[in-house]
Amino acid sequence: MVDVVIIGTMALDSVKTPFGDKKDILGGAATYASFAASFFSQPGIVAVVGDDFPEAHMNLLIDRKINLEGVKKEGKTFRWSGSYEYDMNEAKTLRTELNALETFNPILPDEYKDAEFVFLANIDPSLQLKVLDQIKNPKLVAMDTMNFWIEHKKDDLLNVLKKVDVILLNDAEARQLFNTTNLVKAARAALKLGPKTVIIKKGEHGALMFTNEKHFNAPGYPLEDVKDPTGAGDSFAGAFIGYLAQTKDTSETNMRKAVIFGSVIASFNAEDFSLERMKKLTDKDIEKRFEEMKNIREF
Amino acid sequence: MVDVVIIGTMALDSVKTPFGDKKDILGGAATYASFAASFFSQPGIVAVVGDDFPEAHMNLLIDRKINLEGVKKEGKTFRWSGSYEYDMNEAKTLRTELNALETFNPILPDEYKDAEFVFLANIDPSLQLKVLDQIKNPKLVAMDTMNFWIEHKKDDLLNVLKKVDVILLNDAEARQLFNTTNLVKAARAALKLGPKTVIIKKGEHGALMFTNEKHFNAPGYPLEDVKDPTGAGDSFAGAFIGYLAQTKDTSETNMRKAVIFGSVIASFNAEDFSLERMKKLTDKDIEKRFEEMKNIREF
Repeated sequence: MVDVVIIGTMALDSVKTPFGDKKDILGGAATYASFAASFFSQPGIVAVVGDDFPEAHMNLLIDRKINLEGVKKEGKTFRWSGSYEYDMNEAKTLRTELNALETFNPILPDEYKDAEFVFLANIDPSLQLKVLDQIKNPKLVAMDTMNFWIEHKKDDLLNVLKKVDVILLNDAEARQLFNTTNLVKAARAALKLGPKTVIIKKGEHGALMFTNEKHFNAPGYPLEDVKDPTGAGDSFAGAFIGYLAQTKDTSETNMRKAVIFGSVIASFNAEDFSLERMKKLTDKDIEKRFEEMKNIREF
Repeated sequence: MVDVVIIGTMALDSVKTPFGDKKDILGGAATYASFAASFFSQPGIVAVVGDDFPEAHMNLLIDRKINLEGVKKEGKTFRWSGSYEYDMNEAKTLRTELNALETFNPILPDEYKDAEFVFLANIDPSLQLKVLDQIKNPKLVAMDTMNFWIEHKKDDLLNVLKKVDVILLNDAEARQLFNTTNLVKAARAALKLGPKTVIIKKGEHGALMFTNEKHFNAPGYPLEDVKDPTGAGDSFAGAFIGYLAQTKDTSETNMRKAVIFGSVIASFNAEDFSLERMKKLTDKDIEKRFEEMKNIREF
């Protein structure tokens, strides 16, 4: 059974932060998001990898019961390399090799088509749309994107935006897409274009969730050591939709909890490179940090 | 009666933001802080103004029952002019005229000396120390500072730091003073130097409070229109210490509430230039926004 369909990249990343320099490590938005979602539900990935994609990476995902029927194998794996400066706030993309992504035409396995929850992770918006069109009757669709698509495929992006229930953006993307420095204004603008819920991820500063009637402010977990923020936003979104799929409750109140689980998983993810920290994560770790998140915002 | 002594500047500011350009308006750290504190308690100011300081400004403070016995009149008023770029995050100082501040020697009126709460607002740390030395038996001393003193009077600043219970800094100052981009690390470093409580103000992103045992994350109020952030940090601190003085409760739990009142008053203050918004503020407005702050945090 697949209850969350996730389309996005599966990648081999090369990442440099002040705490290390890693080559060809497991990465990609769909990888991070599905791994995070797997703590709560049964995700299935739609993606493409090349023959150079290590079997061990596939097995890591299979061990978490992530469905890989929708992962096509052809050509060469998408590669991204980036670096973070001392303040770790924003990745500087050094190089992107699209490879197999250039010709990728996502075809969904039948068992994916009945999924009630869909996460369109960061990838070309025209691919997001192709996947969404194959889902029969989604209960909730969430999307993410990145500055590259805002700059180069804004029309396609706005087309997807019209069809989703939830958009997740980071603060810089929200400012860029809606041409305002004020995040409240950016969220209001997003709400006018289709989504009923807008989530703005602010890294160490937590996250904001806006609906037309309500505002929710999620604290950031106070991390003393951030080793690598790569994939934090994807993990956030994966845990968010995974929790919603688990509870089958898409009320604003339950989405607040989902946002907190998103922050929790994202904070763990930033503690190490690639999926190293998430690999070791237990339900108990998650529960404990969720309780801490309650405590740090109590007044 | 004076229950909170506040030393800091009283100033005539010239401020330019994307929403206006104002000349010689009422400003200064002690002005903002005492006005904010006056919603909760009876502050007394220690400051100096010149003969050019309009009587109307003094009356505005007197109307709020702020004690001005400690305000000396000589020479010419301190002037600051600054501007904010489109993102409104940081003031760019264009010009500072110290004027009467250059020779200011603060002497406390007797009725100030028994005050239990002291706020050393942003001013030369050697003046902060002179005031603190005249307070007989303070229950809680809080201090603020700014980048200028971190750069030019760091030793004096660290001397004051040793003697206070609470330090309030904005995020940029915390990073600068402790030479780290990580705010958790900065707070841990500050806690080692004397204060039992460290509060880091993050503007729109809210505030963090650290003690050795606990961490509190206060949300930022979602303001759609920020007209002028000048004095937001001072208002925050004034409301914080004012609420503590009113309740006479310096427990960590009560400080969390004080931080929220700080955020509430600071958010109002940013809605207009100078003290324009605070002038019209009612207890009901404050109570309402305090309740909103609870609601945006609930999960």
